[in-house]
Amino acid sequence: MELPRHNLRTPGPTPCPEDVLDAMSGPMINHRGPEFRELISGISEKLKKVFGTEEDVFVLTASGTGCLEASIVNTLSPDDKVLAVSCGSFGDRFASIAQAYGADVTKMSVNWGKAADPDAVREALAADPGIKAVLITHNETSTGITNDLQALSKVIKDEFDKLLLVDAVSSLGCIPLPMDEWRCDVVGTAAQKGMMVPPGLGFISMSADAWAAYKTSTMGRFYFDLGAAQRYLRVGQTPWTPGLPMYYGVNVALDRMMEEGLEQVYRRHARLADFTRESLKAMGLSLFADPDHASDTVTAVWTPDGIDGTELLEQLRVDDAVVLAEGQGKMEGRIFRIGHMGYVDEDDLRVALVALERGLAKAGYRPVGAAGA
Amino acid sequence: MELPRHNLRTPGPTPCPEDVLDAMSGPMINHRGPEFRELISGISEKLKKVFGTEEDVFVLTASGTGCLEASIVNTLSPDDKVLAVSCGSFGDRFASIAQAYGADVTKMSVNWGKAADPDAVREALAADPGIKAVLITHNETSTGITNDLQALSKVIKDEFDKLLLVDAVSSLGCIPLPMDEWRCDVVGTAAQKGMMVPPGLGFISMSADAWAAYKTSTMGRFYFDLGAAQRYLRVGQTPWTPGLPMYYGVNVALDRMMEEGLEQVYRRHARLADFTRESLKAMGLSLFADPDHASDTVTAVWTPDGIDGTELLEQLRVDDAVVLAEGQGKMEGRIFRIGHMGYVDEDDLRVALVALERGLAKAGYRPVGAAGA
Repeated sequence: MELPRHNLRTPGPTPCPEDVLDAMSGPMINHRGPEFRELISGISEKLKKVFGTEEDVFVLTASGTGCLEASIVNTLSPDDKVLAVSCGSFGDRFASIAQAYGADVTKMSVNWGKAADPDAVREALAADPGIKAVLITHNETSTGITNDLQALSKVIKDEFDKLLLVDAVSSLGCIPLPMDEWRCDVVGTAAQKGMMVPPGLGFISMSADAWAAYKTSTMGRFYFDLGAAQRYLRVGQTPWTPGLPMYYGVNVALDRMMEEGLEQVYRRHARLADFTRESLKAMGLSLFADPDHASDTVTAVWTPDGIDGTELLEQLRVDDAVVLAEGQGKMEGRIFRIGHMGYVDEDDLRVALVALERGLAKAGYRPVGAAGA
Repeated sequence: MELPRHNLRTPGPTPCPEDVLDAMSGPMINHRGPEFRELISGISEKLKKVFGTEEDVFVLTASGTGCLEASIVNTLSPDDKVLAVSCGSFGDRFASIAQAYGADVTKMSVNWGKAADPDAVREALAADPGIKAVLITHNETSTGITNDLQALSKVIKDEFDKLLLVDAVSSLGCIPLPMDEWRCDVVGTAAQKGMMVPPGLGFISMSADAWAAYKTSTMGRFYFDLGAAQRYLRVGQTPWTPGLPMYYGVNVALDRMMEEGLEQVYRRHARLADFTRESLKAMGLSLFADPDHASDTVTAVWTPDGIDGTELLEQLRVDDAVVLAEGQGKMEGRIFRIGHMGYVDEDDLRVALVALERGLAKAGYRPVGAAGA
């Protein structure tokens, strides 16, 4: 079938550089041979820089949800008490995984569009000393907020010494997350967001505290067993057959990130997020997220009154080849979302925003402010 | 890094057709949009033909081991009694997964190189009426044997009415496995073997009996929850972000299989296996597997006395770009293996076998029989 070349402004999958896509077509190699050993060793070393860690970073053949599952099943046991701080769909998912494996989950549901409050987390941890681990979504893709992970870590690690499990799927490689410095115990992310690679791989790392927890953890695990991943990484392999094409792709993408420089990558994301938010406001649109915690990777926008969000997005896709994302869960139809992470620059966003403005006008929207973009 | 173009004769990953590899470089699309809906719907329909089933076939972003895990966690509960029939490394792995999730596993270890005996399975099932499920590896990649699944199913299903969980990773798409006709309850396979696609996807289907077991199964599961996969397949989606490039690849590969015709695909594999075995015997080499159950996808060969198998394979890789596979587990160094599944024809094998003959001669091997290939 013919695949469209969209201006894909969903918060993942995101468009990939041509050289990354080209690399995906590489020939098959023996995953127990020297070529793969060289490949995985190089990727792991570069990933350690992106994660800001001295620990091993493992590549899992799975999407981000697989990494979240790995975070939980490698550190916890059934009936372990867990505080799941949820700011939206993905926070809910993290909590659901822990529940599916029998953890005793206390969910702190933050109002959608808001970030987690470190004081509220402190109160929850003080109220139940039995809590072993805290689940945090660094960047909540469904609402477009970024949690202040550094401040949360100060409470969770420095004050209470709990395990801190971080969903970094839509933040890592876009927003600073120095894993070791911020004392995160598990950080998991995926290929198809800031890493500029097609979906199909996850990346995950565990601290010394997490490895200590691993030793006594009794949740069922096999495919996502990081102990097996570690044993095989020592000999330049993976325990199960790895998704080779994505390894080829991520190897190229990581070189690109190193060449641009991580600080520069973060600055670009901050600049593009600001550009997106200002353009949307100039169209008279209302942003969904708390401005103090607005995400640098995805922006959620209220669907204006009288506009059918689903129809608007469908029209943009058909007329302009611009693809935005619908709201998720309880915000379906009420907000829509624009991704600005990974391989993206001002021009990509300008084209999308101009199309949006035109699409809104066609749908009968009359902004209060001046036209933007 | 520069990737070598090997004559890759490992039993997975296997070489892929150029049009499959080219498809891997396709652009990213929204996995919640109409293009993906069309893609997954087409793939699922074609997979049903390859599986020989009227049931849904699900695509998992994971390798074959993930599919084996899915087989178990979607049908069983901790403490369920399971008979694991193991003919080698992969049979052992299937058993280990069930154990990791708390099943009460009785392992029937068949001598390596031999196939499972239906009479022995009957005895084991008669001896313990509490057994709920039987795990069978259809084709054991580590030893090069194919179990008589039809005969085993007659015992397991017709006589004892147990759940029959089948590892079809290195058989499906190469060796006949009509899932519905043979009353298999779960069949799982992977992309990188007979399906002619790079690794990174698994395919799995469950019978009505398996779905009934799903309802009461209490093993921990989330990423591999086939109930979620089924709900999302109804709307042309996957619950978690799918490995898009492999979907592009498998779509092309399935069209190729349909064009060649499944019966013709099976005949080709049988012919190439016969060609491989006869050529090896003509070199004076001894085959490892019981000839009555020799696999049509992989052939294991005894390393001749006085030859270092590891050195031989390394020399073939460096001198001739021919990559064979070492023995696994307890047969490491004692046997080596030649894959002949997926996108392969006589010429590919002839080149590999001639290189092998030359490599053996260089290493000092003097065959008793006449030179072959």
